[in-house]
Amino acid sequence: MDVRIGLIGCGVMGADHAAILRAGVAGARLAAVQDADGKRARALAETLGTVAVMDEAAALIASPEVDAVLIAAPDPAHAPLVLACIAAGKPVLCEKPLADTVEGCRGVVAAEMKSGGRLVQVGFMRRFDAGYHAMRQAVERESLGAPLMLHCVHRNKVAPDYITSAQVIANSGVHEMDIARYLLAEDFAAVTVISARPSRLMPNRQPQMILLESARGVVVSVEVTPDAQYGYDVRGELVCESGTISLAPAPPVALRQAGLDGFAVEEDWRTRFGEAYRAQMVAWVHAVRGGQPAGASAWDGYMASRTAAAALEAWQAGGRVVMAPESRPDFYAV
Amino acid sequence: MDVRIGLIGCGVMGADHAAILRAGVAGARLAAVQDADGKRARALAETLGTVAVMDEAAALIASPEVDAVLIAAPDPAHAPLVLACIAAGKPVLCEKPLADTVEGCRGVVAAEMKSGGRLVQVGFMRRFDAGYHAMRQAVERESLGAPLMLHCVHRNKVAPDYITSAQVIANSGVHEMDIARYLLAEDFAAVTVISARPSRLMPNRQPQMILLESARGVVVSVEVTPDAQYGYDVRGELVCESGTISLAPAPPVALRQAGLDGFAVEEDWRTRFGEAYRAQMVAWVHAVRGGQPAGASAWDGYMASRTAAAALEAWQAGGRVVMAPESRPDFYAV
Amino acid sequence: MDVRIGLIGCGVMGADHAAILRAGVAGARLAAVQDADGKRARALAETLGTVAVMDEAAALIASPEVDAVLIAAPDPAHAPLVLACIAAGKPVLCEKPLADTVEGCRGVVAAEMKSGGRLVQVGFMRRFDAGYHAMRQAVERESLGAPLMLHCVHRNKVAPDYITSAQVIANSGVHEMDIARYLLAEDFAAVTVISARPSRLMPNRQPQMILLESARGVVVSVEVTPDAQYGYDVRGELVCESGTISLAPAPPVALRQAGLDGFAVEEDWRTRFGEAYRAQMVAWVHAVRGGQPAGASAWDGYMASRTAAAALEAWQAGGRVVMAPESRPDFYAV
Amino acid sequence: MDVRIGLIGCGVMGADHAAILRAGVAGARLAAVQDADGKRARALAETLGTVAVMDEAAALIASPEVDAVLIAAPDPAHAPLVLACIAAGKPVLCEKPLADTVEGCRGVVAAEMKSGGRLVQVGFMRRFDAGYHAMRQAVERESLGAPLMLHCVHRNKVAPDYITSAQVIANSGVHEMDIARYLLAEDFAAVTVISARPSRLMPNRQPQMILLESARGVVVSVEVTPDAQYGYDVRGELVCESGTISLAPAPPVALRQAGLDGFAVEEDWRTRFGEAYRAQMVAWVHAVRGGQPAGASAWDGYMASRTAAAALEAWQAGGRVVMAPESRPDFYAV
Repeated sequence: MDVRIGLIGCGVMGADHAAILRAGVAGARLAAVQDADGKRARALAETLGTVAVMDEAAALIASPEVDAVLIAAPDPAHAPLVLACIAAGKPVLCEKPLADTVEGCRGVVAAEMKSGGRLVQVGFMRRFDAGYHAMRQAVERESLGAPLMLHCVHRNKVAPDYITSAQVIANSGVHEMDIARYLLAEDFAAVTVISARPSRLMPNRQPQMILLESARGVVVSVEVTPDAQYGYDVRGELVCESGTISLAPAPPVALRQAGLDGFAVEEDWRTRFGEAYRAQMVAWVHAVRGGQPAGASAWDGYMASRTAAAALEAWQAGGRVVMAPESRPDFYAV
Repeated sequence: MDVRIGLIGCGVMGADHAAILRAGVAGARLAAVQDADGKRARALAETLGTVAVMDEAAALIASPEVDAVLIAAPDPAHAPLVLACIAAGKPVLCEKPLADTVEGCRGVVAAEMKSGGRLVQVGFMRRFDAGYHAMRQAVERESLGAPLMLHCVHRNKVAPDYITSAQVIANSGVHEMDIARYLLAEDFAAVTVISARPSRLMPNRQPQMILLESARGVVVSVEVTPDAQYGYDVRGELVCESGTISLAPAPPVALRQAGLDGFAVEEDWRTRFGEAYRAQMVAWVHAVRGGQPAGASAWDGYMASRTAAAALEAWQAGGRVVMAPESRPDFYAV
Repeated sequence: MDVRIGLIGCGVMGADHAAILRAGVAGARLAAVQDADGKRARALAETLGTVAVMDEAAALIASPEVDAVLIAAPDPAHAPLVLACIAAGKPVLCEKPLADTVEGCRGVVAAEMKSGGRLVQVGFMRRFDAGYHAMRQAVERESLGAPLMLHCVHRNKVAPDYITSAQVIANSGVHEMDIARYLLAEDFAAVTVISARPSRLMPNRQPQMILLESARGVVVSVEVTPDAQYGYDVRGELVCESGTISLAPAPPVALRQAGLDGFAVEEDWRTRFGEAYRAQMVAWVHAVRGGQPAGASAWDGYMASRTAAAALEAWQAGGRVVMAPESRPDFYAV
Repeated sequence: MDVRIGLIGCGVMGADHAAILRAGVAGARLAAVQDADGKRARALAETLGTVAVMDEAAALIASPEVDAVLIAAPDPAHAPLVLACIAAGKPVLCEKPLADTVEGCRGVVAAEMKSGGRLVQVGFMRRFDAGYHAMRQAVERESLGAPLMLHCVHRNKVAPDYITSAQVIANSGVHEMDIARYLLAEDFAAVTVISARPSRLMPNRQPQMILLESARGVVVSVEVTPDAQYGYDVRGELVCESGTISLAPAPPVALRQAGLDGFAVEEDWRTRFGEAYRAQMVAWVHAVRGGQPAGASAWDGYMASRTAAAALEAWQAGGRVVMAPESRPDFYAV
């Protein structure tokens, strides 16, 4: 039988998840949707065929017609909803962050461990991108020797007006923190943040340079620029002992036009990581159906939030912050 | 209800199609498989869950458990199988070529038209590649002005030993003939073929340069190299009035290693066009379920074979062969 | 003592040659200039320091203050001036073409042979481009095996209004004919020309596709587009038995701006081949001072014109023209 | 009259400078050479034509046959030789560093200012590289808005065995410190250094990440990897308010071979910056002959050394070091 998925949150990201399921993911179908704005939920449902619309998230989670839950609600709602899913014994894929505080993340981890089984996946979709996958394989196979440095670049075209420097670090930067930890397969021991001057086009927030040091001494540089203007651009180069491997994201065609030879930059993460979102869904459904847990666990979500919090602390203090090592519980081994 | 698909031919390509369906295509499932080699059919079926194995292609086509047919059998079997599907009133997606002779293609076209409805799609999967799609859009929108020239390159790493120069033109080159006709949205009026000397590594067949002239005067150059050694490589550049648009196929990562900065070339068309094969299946299923016909029609398959035959004639004659114009029946409009 | 160079022709190309000499070429200095337009000659001389201005080309060639002659005068003047240099026993570097007819070229070859020594170099500057140099080395060393095909692209941004289709073939295309013959180190045996429809932006001339076949069976495709609009672009890919080598001309910086990631295309051949022009001058001066003859000889200039003439014949006849083999005189060995 | 240049130091770099002069730099010629190893000086002289060989550097500097001095002697000799040139009133181009201590640099600056005229140029040749030149122009013209961040990568293939981590920072890193200060046209206010773990291939020194903060808040990241193995690689990307501009160093040809599509990485800085070395010489000769001073001044050499010293201090202290602002004397304006 197909896994019947309930979607909580019918905004842009929720609608994208729904579209992926509508296009076909083996062994799964979207069964119910819910949104705090009922109108938005009904509008989405109309595009999807036979899908139930529920008024309350709690009802969706409790519904016998829902086997697994996909959370794309606003950030503060994440932890309570994930805890409800755990309480109901239902697998859940939650958009990042797992919770809006480190404590909240810790609470989810504790609840999941107490439940006795792995139920939570966090939507760090980049782990399913073909480029990062190849970089991770290079680390695992040591095909270029061991990693020494990793350079990450995260540029948004224009971030929403309300985004602050703290959010540039914690909300955008956290994607890099998770993927860097994933690529290197180890935790971070220290973090330093140096802010650049703001663009005159957006003077109330600053591009950030975040320096992470892994437990074994790999140095990770992370540029996060919220208002790059020219497009959405995510870059990564892993410097290893005998060579480097880099993301090479390029659209399928190149143009020679008006004095320039090049290609179009992506508009946002939804196009750039469209394939990764789909692969994430396939892997999650596979796990729900009894396969190996895939993607970021609640522990990974917790560690990402911890790193982001340490980065904020380093940013405010203007110095290097050392992060105490923390052993991954066996529960999250795999 | 899901479209129940029957697959005829369980070789490499058939297995790939089966894998696409297994990974999930909305509205469809693989219901039955058949192969002249029954063992091969059973081996494939075992990897697929509940799928019937049939002994005879005719039985599969006739089966009430099969709504639509996917043909990946050897080339000479294509036309008879497609005709049987038409006779049974079942939609069919047939790997290229539609038939192994121009006459065979014409027979299919005639039978389909007589049947009163569109049933046949030919597996020219490149039409679903994102790069060619963007090139076609550039032509439709005249975003770079009208096309003047098109350069195509088709290189196989090492073709099978039995492939002859004639097959280099007709079997490999036909992919370029179809995609060029698709991109330009017009038929060809003339063809010239000039053979290069053979590689000493494979002296019994020659790389070919095929020159096509479209009805409106666009010149298409097609290099087909059967034994490029370094990898599988398909290139295309469309030269328009105010700029050019080119395929930019690159794996998701770049490497700097051992004195070189670059990226890995594909091994074969299955990886290069993996996404295109999936998109082709999605579009076919959509059409079978009542949507717009997509991809190459029987008419397109006929025109491709006609062009290939004219190229063979030009090759043998050592001169330019003019192709008589032929109007597309209204039946194939759209 | 420095070689004292006399320059005939003070237009754009002549001024560029003068600038190269002014910037410093070991063992040479510009001693005299002449132009049919005396004002232009004087204006150029004023920018150059102590340089004599002569009224007549004949006087410049005859002058005891001039050791070697650089010809950048209009095309029809080339052959008579080169013949005068030969008669005076003075080395000459003549902009291409060597003469404006095949007969004219033959006359120069005969005169030079009769003179008993090598005096003439033709300004096919591409032979000194680092990219073509590397391609030629790959052929000589067979580092990628023997060549099978060569693809050349020659695009001007916008050609002058008076340029005709015949000139597109003979004047622009001849650069490709010379460099292809140089890269392959063999003569051509046949040529076919297929014209594309004209751009609506310049309806009175057509982009051309020229197909050359070398004596040993290498096929060369040459696209010449006079009005590419987006910039000046010269491309080349040599397809060999085990790999390909391509020109990779890119300015020293890349830009990410306004939704595009790429680099600026050159405006014209003067920037694209600026280094090649300088290297050509250095090599010519070296040869004049007793070194090995370098660059294109009068024989090469003759063969280029012969190929261009055959291409024009093929274009007018609409078919393949076979070129009779012609042995290079020992005089031009090296 | 030509400027007669005296060269002190006939090792690899000295020989390269001599070769540039031999190939022709307008208005200059190499008149004398000297090396602590007289044999080496004589061997070089033999390849150069009429060049005097001197036994002592002091004699060369004092010689009436020498108008200007080029210093390519070992680092500790730089400052004393430059001071001698200043004392003799002769223009000098000195390989970096200007002196082996900050104090030494300060001494040269003081001596030059006392002399009343600009005599010293430091051989930071990258300032003459076409790529950096274009980046500097983008800053000056604000064609992409103001700079916010700059990412620099400096990788040596394999550094000599005796190179220490301190030298990685101070000797290799100083190239980036100078060019970053040049590109941004402002001084640095703070520096932080974070060391990565060493490669197992070279365990006694570490790759370094140097973070510079400019006075106006531009953040500069500098990776210096002494043993990158795959080749010599210098990268730079300047992130500005509306786009980025990057070095795009690529050899003139691309290769498709053995499963890879790419290009050869440089072996060392001599090939990578060969053109820059030549342009530096041309600019220096121009300045010596009365033109505008060009390239890095003694002040720039001093500031580079000061920044390198601060980086070493930050490295040893493990924290951020603030650099006191220091006004450029009017003497060094321009």
